[in-house]
Amino acid sequence: MIINGVQIDDTFAEAFDMRSTRVIITAQNHQWAYHAANAMTGFATSVIGCGVEAGIERELSASDTPDGRPGVSILMFAMGSKVLMKQLETRMGQCILTCPTAAAFSGIESDDQISLGKNLRYFGDGYQISKLIPDAQGKNQRYWRIPVMDGEFLTQETTGMVRAIGGGNFLVLATSQPQALAACEVAIEAMKKIPNVIMPFPGGVVRSGSKVGSKYPSMFASTNDAFCPTLKGMVNSELSDDIESVMEIVIDGLTFDDIALATKVGIETACSLGVKGGVKRISAGNYGGKLGPHHFKLHEVLA
Amino acid sequence: MIINGVQIDDTFAEAFDMRSTRVIITAQNHQWAYHAANAMTGFATSVIGCGVEAGIERELSASDTPDGRPGVSILMFAMGSKVLMKQLETRMGQCILTCPTAAAFSGIESDDQISLGKNLRYFGDGYQISKLIPDAQGKNQRYWRIPVMDGEFLTQETTGMVRAIGGGNFLVLATSQPQALAACEVAIEAMKKIPNVIMPFPGGVVRSGSKVGSKYPSMFASTNDAFCPTLKGMVNSELSDDIESVMEIVIDGLTFDDIALATKVGIETACSLGVKGGVKRISAGNYGGKLGPHHFKLHEVLA
Amino acid sequence: MIINGVQIDDTFAEAFDMRSTRVIITAQNHQWAYHAANAMTGFATSVIGCGVEAGIERELSASDTPDGRPGVSILMFAMGSKVLMKQLETRMGQCILTCPTAAAFSGIESDDQISLGKNLRYFGDGYQISKLIPDAQGKNQRYWRIPVMDGEFLTQETTGMVRAIGGGNFLVLATSQPQALAACEVAIEAMKKIPNVIMPFPGGVVRSGSKVGSKYPSMFASTNDAFCPTLKGMVNSELSDDIESVMEIVIDGLTFDDIALATKVGIETACSLGVKGGVKRISAGNYGGKLGPHHFKLHEVLA
Amino acid sequence: MIINGVQIDDTFAEAFDMRSTRVIITAQNHQWAYHAANAMTGFATSVIGCGVEAGIERELSASDTPDGRPGVSILMFAMGSKVLMKQLETRMGQCILTCPTAAAFSGIESDDQISLGKNLRYFGDGYQISKLIPDAQGKNQRYWRIPVMDGEFLTQETTGMVRAIGGGNFLVLATSQPQALAACEVAIEAMKKIPNVIMPFPGGVVRSGSKVGSKYPSMFASTNDAFCPTLKGMVNSELSDDIESVMEIVIDGLTFDDIALATKVGIETACSLGVKGGVKRISAGNYGGKLGPHHFKLHEVLA
Repeated sequence: MIINGVQIDDTFAEAFDMRSTRVIITAQNHQWAYHAANAMTGFATSVIGCGVEAGIERELSASDTPDGRPGVSILMFAMGSKVLMKQLETRMGQCILTCPTAAAFSGIESDDQISLGKNLRYFGDGYQISKLIPDAQGKNQRYWRIPVMDGEFLTQETTGMVRAIGGGNFLVLATSQPQALAACEVAIEAMKKIPNVIMPFPGGVVRSGSKVGSKYPSMFASTNDAFCPTLKGMVNSELSDDIESVMEIVIDGLTFDDIALATKVGIETACSLGVKGGVKRISAGNYGGKLGPHHFKLHEVLA
Repeated sequence: MIINGVQIDDTFAEAFDMRSTRVIITAQNHQWAYHAANAMTGFATSVIGCGVEAGIERELSASDTPDGRPGVSILMFAMGSKVLMKQLETRMGQCILTCPTAAAFSGIESDDQISLGKNLRYFGDGYQISKLIPDAQGKNQRYWRIPVMDGEFLTQETTGMVRAIGGGNFLVLATSQPQALAACEVAIEAMKKIPNVIMPFPGGVVRSGSKVGSKYPSMFASTNDAFCPTLKGMVNSELSDDIESVMEIVIDGLTFDDIALATKVGIETACSLGVKGGVKRISAGNYGGKLGPHHFKLHEVLA
Repeated sequence: MIINGVQIDDTFAEAFDMRSTRVIITAQNHQWAYHAANAMTGFATSVIGCGVEAGIERELSASDTPDGRPGVSILMFAMGSKVLMKQLETRMGQCILTCPTAAAFSGIESDDQISLGKNLRYFGDGYQISKLIPDAQGKNQRYWRIPVMDGEFLTQETTGMVRAIGGGNFLVLATSQPQALAACEVAIEAMKKIPNVIMPFPGGVVRSGSKVGSKYPSMFASTNDAFCPTLKGMVNSELSDDIESVMEIVIDGLTFDDIALATKVGIETACSLGVKGGVKRISAGNYGGKLGPHHFKLHEVLA
Repeated sequence: MIINGVQIDDTFAEAFDMRSTRVIITAQNHQWAYHAANAMTGFATSVIGCGVEAGIERELSASDTPDGRPGVSILMFAMGSKVLMKQLETRMGQCILTCPTAAAFSGIESDDQISLGKNLRYFGDGYQISKLIPDAQGKNQRYWRIPVMDGEFLTQETTGMVRAIGGGNFLVLATSQPQALAACEVAIEAMKKIPNVIMPFPGGVVRSGSKVGSKYPSMFASTNDAFCPTLKGMVNSELSDDIESVMEIVIDGLTFDDIALATKVGIETACSLGVKGGVKRISAGNYGGKLGPHHFKLHEVLA
């Protein structure tokens, strides 16, 4: 399969079951909604080292938020429910409770409800006020008004937790580093418009792809040498001579279709720079299909 | 003391001994240096909940960085050296090793050297290369070139760790929330130009100031009710009738003088909006002077 | 009429017939699409002094543009067709022809077609190539590929010109300058999501509202003293004692309904800060209804 | 001469005498100073089509501006003094007088003083107030306080006009468009730190370099075909086979040394991407040395 001169490997991305939640953060204006969201989703690139993977899903117009103020929605993913709940609480307390003018609301429905402001309310030292407001379906939702120095911190009591998928991915192989970066930049720009997904690495892109195992006994993962351009002569390389830089975009999403769409849009946009722009080949990372139950076959996704 | 009609309380900020380090992050362009730095300094608002307090100190011109590429410098603060070292390693691995085109360098000299890339090098699975390059003083510095997919991850082996101070602060008391926010915004803009300091909260500002103790036995801190405008009638309030919003700027810095200067610049800039802009009074937070050894007396700092 | 405690004057905005066009600008990534668009829509705040009023209407996803690359759409308004055509050509030549990786496409259909790249093609010195590509309706559209140093400048030959409306407006009256600014900021954020409109002044807001006439014979307009807070004691003021700052948002749009919607969204969002946030009253500017044929009655628009 | 593998042509840039002025724009915060400055310096890419070339020189800390508020400095260049004076007045009236919270100050000293707010004061309809404030040298400077809706528009009466130079330049020749763009991006980032210069084209870069003359009698300039990569086979090309994209950075500055420094910094930074990043050669544009009195020999500038 060729798109705009770029070869698309006949391979698949292997992804895993995860738990996810969405939170809507509002503030006096978008700038401050972003301050809160950036703090909350920072240091959340990989569940292995950070506990969660998190990112800003999209910007919300004032007319689209529960309190009619400008906002953003963020998504968080973790391997298990306990980790997700703990990380959500901690990050809420450290980044939203603290941020001037910020408020927090549930961003997703689910029979599984997890604490958003439920425990934070005790920060109010007994002065917190509860409000029950029926939602669009007539079901009562509980909110907490917690007195703080800038006024009140308004937060919904809980938000939903759902089953989700993490680890969708594709690799961009290019003839130089600036070209790989340019292709990934436009891919990320386009993928940011897709709802229900985030790309958790810095700028949405990761360059330190890894393989299972290492010559060092204590390390369970190490650099993916088959895709390292400076090791082309030294290892069993996947790279042809002309490839000088490889970058990867990892995608976490609520459903298989969400990740498939983001993968498709991302690859097509990266390929728009074409061979002329130094993009030679698109691939994907997997573990032989043995570890993760969700397989995104590139040729099917792009069909 | 009055500045531009704004009353300056005769009080002091009480700050603590901390350990700090500086890292210089470079990338192909500033945009990607910021992606790496934002990931690394996110979720780092307070040592209590995040382990570290971190932020971007300033932008660096390509001519001012060790590898002649655009960059930023970041500062990290923790209560003890072990926590700092652990957090630095983890955040380096999660946010800089991963970020396309990023490189990392020592940002501060010290007899106390801590690992920057020292352990990350093993990610290279034996293919990493070490380089010794003499610095400006003629002393050999060790760098690691770690093969990754986008090319190489270049990192200095260690960076310095120094004694520093955290918890400098001042409070802005205003007649409405938008006015408090506007005053703090310009204060932060000005303080960002001061070297050797960071303001770790979201957007540099915190609205959830706390007091020691709580009616709930398990909580050791709770909302600072004396400064909560919605509790004016209900508690022993510090606030006059006209104060409707209070926000706080917390400052961590390398030395007492750095924090004093940032405090002065911040307060003077907040006061530039004046009483006309709704800014009535500036105060500061302390524990009676009994917990932290560093006291920033507002009237002395502003003299 | 009161919204969130804010008084809405029973008055109307008086707007004028104008001509308008839309251009879609694409580039390698959004950042460069914005560079081109910002240059093209700069110095275009008022037809009186700049010849045109122009602004960025919205960002376009790569999948939503004619060439599948990231882009933005811009709108330009002028009093007459000749001025619009001349300004469009000049600004295209100075800001889009010049901008690395930029391409330009028609953004609006009309029986009235005006030159987009039609005359610019001669810059190709005879080497320009024409392409006819049928559009979605099967009608042939002509594009020009003009050889330039970065590759080729691709531009559609013409774009549509339509009748439109300019000068919709509302005024925000607040108890201090920072509060007026905060209210207008969030209003503009919300209005930017409305298609078919632009707010041409810097940041979308104007503070130098004028009245017809002046004590100086050569000047046909001067400061709107009835709305100047520092002249409250000296003139026949429209302002109550507590109003210390007034700002105005001017709206140009393709149809009456577009401007009405933007006005409604803008006022409602400004009012969300409420009396607590210093917003006391909303008004609008008109000439007694004698000059402009389009009247936006605030109470009707907000109904 | 080779820098990082990149060939530096032994040629020179040919630049012209111009007149210039600097204006300092302050506002409540940097965001609004930028709104005013972007409007004022938009549509100012080339004196031929826009009348002036203008750009933001740098950001100013609140402590570095005349009124102690955040600001930016802008530079404007024109071929003659009359054009400069007229453009400055018009752009001041359209973009600074109009912008909420903006103030304007002289940014450069000169025996030649031109109107900044001198004529704008009449907008105050007789209510404007003049203030004389001695500057650091003890010389009285006149300021005008003009009543407007948001409060007052404070502007200095005049600013200085100086002889300057426009048209310094260098060309970046690369093996693909994304690589040329990446190299120019980092060059511009570095050049923005150099005082006294601006790069007036969109994003600071121009791709439509021209030559004198055209096959069309009415056009005095046309595409620089010798540097157009799609014309390599058809004209007397300056480009080797591997060059697929050329971009140019034009520099206007106050003195020869300012432009020489910016040229040096820009070229060195573009070359930092190196041959590996697709940058093969640096050149410059001139008219044989016959038109412009200022010659920037690349090999001398880079020595």
